[in-house]
Formats: sequence, structure tokens, C-alpha cells
Amino acid sequence: MEIVNRVSRMSAITAKVLSADVKIGLVSTMGAIHPGHLSLIQTARKMTDLVVVSIFVNRLQFLTDDEYKEYPRDITKDVDLLRNESVDYIFTPPEEEMYPADFSTYVEVENFGQKLPGLHQAAYFKGMTTSVMKMLHIVKPAFLFFGQKDGLQGAILRKMVRDLNINTEVVVLPIVRDASGLAYAARNYFLTEPQKAAASVIYRSLQAAQAAVAAGETQAKRVIAEIARVVGAEPQAKLEYAVVADPGNLEPLTKIQGSALIAVGAMIGKTSLNDSLLVEKK
Amino acid sequence: MEIVNRVSRMSAITAKVLSADVKIGLVSTMGAIHPGHLSLIQTARKMTDLVVVSIFVNRLQFLTDDEYKEYPRDITKDVDLLRNESVDYIFTPPEEEMYPADFSTYVEVENFGQKLPGLHQAAYFKGMTTSVMKMLHIVKPAFLFFGQKDGLQGAILRKMVRDLNINTEVVVLPIVRDASGLAYAARNYFLTEPQKAAASVIYRSLQAAQAAVAAGETQAKRVIAEIARVVGAEPQAKLEYAVVADPGNLEPLTKIQGSALIAVGAMIGKTSLNDSLLVEKK
Repeated sequence: MEIVNRVSRMSAITAKVLSADVKIGLVSTMGAIHPGHLSLIQTARKMTDLVVVSIFVNRLQFLTDDEYKEYPRDITKDVDLLRNESVDYIFTPPEEEMYPADFSTYVEVENFGQKLPGLHQAAYFKGMTTSVMKMLHIVKPAFLFFGQKDGLQGAILRKMVRDLNINTEVVVLPIVRDASGLAYAARNYFLTEPQKAAASVIYRSLQAAQAAVAAGETQAKRVIAEIARVVGAEPQAKLEYAVVADPGNLEPLTKIQGSALIAVGAMIGKTSLNDSLLVEKK
Repeated sequence: MEIVNRVSRMSAITAKVLSADVKIGLVSTMGAIHPGHLSLIQTARKMTDLVVVSIFVNRLQFLTDDEYKEYPRDITKDVDLLRNESVDYIFTPPEEEMYPADFSTYVEVENFGQKLPGLHQAAYFKGMTTSVMKMLHIVKPAFLFFGQKDGLQGAILRKMVRDLNINTEVVVLPIVRDASGLAYAARNYFLTEPQKAAASVIYRSLQAAQAAVAAGETQAKRVIAEIARVVGAEPQAKLEYAVVADPGNLEPLTKIQGSALIAVGAMIGKTSLNDSLLVEKK
């Protein structure tokens, strides 16, 4: 495993292996490596010949400076965790190489999921797509791995890849959860133990939604009401959004037919958490 | 020479040759092939192993539907001209493959040249950068060739390539002109013979600007006034813009020191023409 700090070196390495017909897998992270990341890495290992894990806290996808500064960073611990996996390269570019002072080029997926409540933070998604586009150019992966927790992100990236003819497949994998059902996430780091216990309500609300669909419910409105009911029962949780959308184009659904992405966002104390699952109506 | 119409086939061809360490050159055109394009192709031939000429009238970079519809298209004539050059592939994707109905991802170079008069048509540049980004992903060139006539375009693309870590070098080559000094351009097709003669005033205005700089003029304002004077003397020409800018970041210059990009746009009848040159102040 080698740690690469320079964009030019990372780019040279991937260009060289590509000419030898090697398939590259990229697990793009903001650090704070958790079991969810490790599961992506294990799949990347099976599907590709060379695994790159990027660790870059992307300023552009934070809505406030404070949020950016407070994001958990512990590169020593991350490297230790990754050393136990078979990762070929850890790519940790410095901020000034990724966004030099005169940086001003952005990639934006427009008119996508804009009708969904809680998704109006266009700046967030524009920052995310721009950073991933740069990573794709530097690392040149055949496959890019994301967790279903960031299911909206995965759907937006699939659209970007298709629209811009990028030769990379976005692979979205199931969420890894702790025993309480809480999805592993960097932001869990901010939770106290009692908050962690409370946060498990998010997954329970998704399970309740799934159960309702399995029991025959097809009205998105009622599924959303069910999520609100379950989250509402937990005093420490504040529902930010609950949406039922077409997983392909993120258009809100009124009726569930075929597959639907159910996504929930909730605040636990001052921490914003997201979770989602795909349901399939036969 | 092979004509490729499908995005997937072009992408497969270039992926295959790249793994054999072949350097690809792309001459990106909207057709109406003229001696300016041929000169780009000849340089591409010298610098690269495989030359792709793309012919695609990019709807996104027209400000009106009429302009888009009226743009000269003659693929048979273009192919005949290219057959005499050593072009490996002509890539002519259909509109619906480049921009399917749900297309919505754009690449934009922000805060670049926005202070320049005549450059406020942000939609034009956003359409241009988006289309070129797609072409770069499909064709994967080591070098992308542009003429100095589109010097502003070249500067914007260089910024895009740098900001997004694209492994392609933008090569800007000198303008090819007819005996009168008029730069070869697709839009010349719309000019009557008397208009063509009148259009040569654009290059004469640039020559006058260059002569003024060579004679010691360093004030951009006076150079611009000189251009306006020369163009003003031609009744069939209407100056649209005359700018003196830093070729690196397109910021308008007040004083000429080192290199400066002098660009002129003028209407001849209903046809908008552009020309530019680089001056070097020692």
C-alpha cells in the first residue's frame, strides 16, 4: 500500500497501469473510515485489479465553514484501518492542489431531484459532482463504489457519468449497519452514546416504510406519514426529509410501482444523518 | 479513414488504441471544413499517432434556434475534403446520442473573462465546454487542437482542463487566412463576395493594433480605439467588441506588458465574425 499526496503522481500511476489493461476501482471517501467503507473496498478488491481509496474532505460540499472545519479527520487512524485491507493506493491530495486559488470550473447535474424536499441544497451536489469528476480524471477507474446510504448521490453520479460519456460504472452497494441498525457514517463520530441509541430510529422508520409497502401500501404519501410517525416518537430526533422517488431520475413518486428509493434525513442533536433503501413492488 | 456515427463505437475504438500506448489527436469541429481545420489536422498528424476529426454542430453553443438551423452543414463535401488528409476517424454523432431528451449535466468555467465586453454570452461558453468535455471523454485525446481565431475558446478550455485534471493538452495554432487576410471560418459561407472583401477589415484592424503596440503603445484603451477607427472606416462592418486581455486568465488589461490577447468581433451584414492575435511586448 502506498500513500500518494500529489495529483500528478496519482495521475501518472493510473495512466501507466491502464496501458497494461488493468481495471481500477475507486472508493472515494472523506476519511473517517468505517465498516461501510471497508465493505466497499472488499467489493472493489473482488471486481478490479487495483484499488484506490481517496481521502479528501471536499470543502465544496459543505454548506458552512464550521461544518467543514469540524468534519472528523484522523488520517493516522484511517491509514491503520486501510492497512488491514488490500488497498493498493491511498490518495490524499492537499486542498491547494485540488482547489488552487483561481479554481472556477464546476460540473452540475441540473433539473435532477430538485422537486424533492430536502434536496434544494444545490451547492452541496454541485460541489460533490465537481470533486468526483476531478477524482475520475485523476484515478481513471472502471468502477466507482458508493454506499446505498448516499443513494441520492449515487443516482446523481450515474446521471453525470451517462450525460458526460464517462467510461466509469457507478456501483452502489448495500448499507452496512451496526447492531442497532444505525448506518455507519463519518458523522456518527459526533454522536454521544445516548444519541447513537436514538439515531437507530432512522433505520426503524425505513423498516416501517418497507413493511407498509410489503403489506400492500402503494401511496407514497402514506409511506412518508409512516416514517414521520416513527421518527416523531423519538424525542431526540427531528425529521428533516422523507422522500419516495424514482431511483433512476429522482422524481418524486406519488404511487409506488416497480422500484422506489425511500430516503430519510434526520437531525440527532446537531448532527444531520441520512439513510435510504430501495424497495421493489412486484 | 472510417466514419463513426455511434458514441459507443468511438469510445471503444479509442479505449482499445490507448491500451496500446497510442497518442490520439482530436480536431473538434462543427463541420464546414476549411483550410484552418486542415492546418490543425496536419499538425495533429505530426504530433499524434491517430487523428480523429469530430463533426458535430453543437446546439448548446448557439444563442438562437435560427442560428443553429442555418449553420452550414455539408457532410459529403466535408468527408471529401478530409479524405485527402490523413485522418483516421471522422466522428459524427447524431444529436440524440449526444443530447438525449433527459440530458442535463453541464460543465462551466465560472468567473473567467466575464469582465470582457462581448463575452457575456455565458450560455455559449457553457455549451462549448460541455460539448468539448463529452468529446474528450469519448475520444480520450492526448492533444486537442484549436485555432487562434477561437483564442478565447482555447483559453477557457485550458482553464477547464487544468481545473478538472483532464489529461489532455490544448494546442492553439496560428490562424489560416485567405489572400485578403480574412480568417477562414465556417461562417464565411454566409458572406457575399462584396461582404467578404469588407470582412478583411477585421484583420486589418488587428494589424493596426499590432503595429501600434510595436511602435510603443502600451495603453489598451488606445489600442482598442485604433481598432474601432479602422473597423469604423468600413461601412459594411459593425464592431461588436475589441478587447485586450491577459491570455492566461482573460482578465482585461489596461497596460500591455508581456503577452496580450487582442480579440475583435464584428458583424458583416448579419454574420458575426471573430478574429484575434497574440502580441508580445518585450
